[in-house]
Amino acid sequence: MVRILGIDPGSRVTGYGVVELDGGRARAVAWGCIAPPPGPFTGRLHAIFEGVRDVVSTHQPAEAAVEEVFVHRNVAAALKLGQARGAALCAATAAGLPVAEYAPGVVKQAVTGTGRASKAQVAYMVRALLAIREPLAADAADALAVALCHGQHRGRPR
Amino acid sequence: MVRILGIDPGSRVTGYGVVELDGGRARAVAWGCIAPPPGPFTGRLHAIFEGVRDVVSTHQPAEAAVEEVFVHRNVAAALKLGQARGAALCAATAAGLPVAEYAPGVVKQAVTGTGRASKAQVAYMVRALLAIREPLAADAADALAVALCHGQHRGRPR
Repeated sequence: MVRILGIDPGSRVTGYGVVELDGGRARAVAWGCIAPPPGPFTGRLHAIFEGVRDVVSTHQPAEAAVEEVFVHRNVAAALKLGQARGAALCAATAAGLPVAEYAPGVVKQAVTGTGRASKAQVAYMVRALLAIREPLAADAADALAVALCHGQHRGRPR
Repeated sequence: MVRILGIDPGSRVTGYGVVELDGGRARAVAWGCIAPPPGPFTGRLHAIFEGVRDVVSTHQPAEAAVEEVFVHRNVAAALKLGQARGAALCAATAAGLPVAEYAPGVVKQAVTGTGRASKAQVAYMVRALLAIREPLAADAADALAVALCHGQHRGRPR
């Protein structure tokens, strides 16, 4: 049995999802969004760091996973996203978690069977695979998706 | 008397400098570079986080300062720099330090008297102001410069 933390970092909203794997079965332990309060950007980064750290200390995942990012719409947005991502990843690594990275297509393939699935398809399949009945925020769905993806790929040579 | 940590984050090399202010006098306490080992990017982010955390725990600065960044040469570089910056800033905020941000021109003005100074002029003046005789890496010089800048501006309404 292993618990995996999936993270979908963003400067506005960071999604997280903790999945527990028991043999071939996956169960959603917790999921949600961290939305830093308005204010100076360094304070917002710290809120992301603390938010992820709190999820780790509450739910005690053993491993973490995140989507790779290569491109973004512009340089200013990339700088903001990068900083949010750095804050979220450091919260995981500071807690001793190894962090695996997966290309977006690999995550989509893992939960929908196709690397070209839409965001709506991904969210639909995440809810189905984890038997989540509640409405699911897009950022939390993406975080659960990368956690599920890591559940399929962990331990395999990459 | 107050100690200020200046940080110049970078994905390849992160410079740091700790300056002690005693009345109108500034003294360099420590400076250097953190160069993460080759390997997965998350490991490198963690090395930046740990490196800055170690500087804070060793030298116990009360406040931190960093240059603002708005632009960068391309989106991929901005994402990398952003993540390094997020890691470095979270190490400071996680230790309870307030982090002030200054525009590059304000930092140059503070140490050279002109907002259009070259990097070489900034490094020259940092060495002169802090009576540093050793050769100074560019990243460490920039970190000391933003620490000195914060020393001039802290406590003033911005």
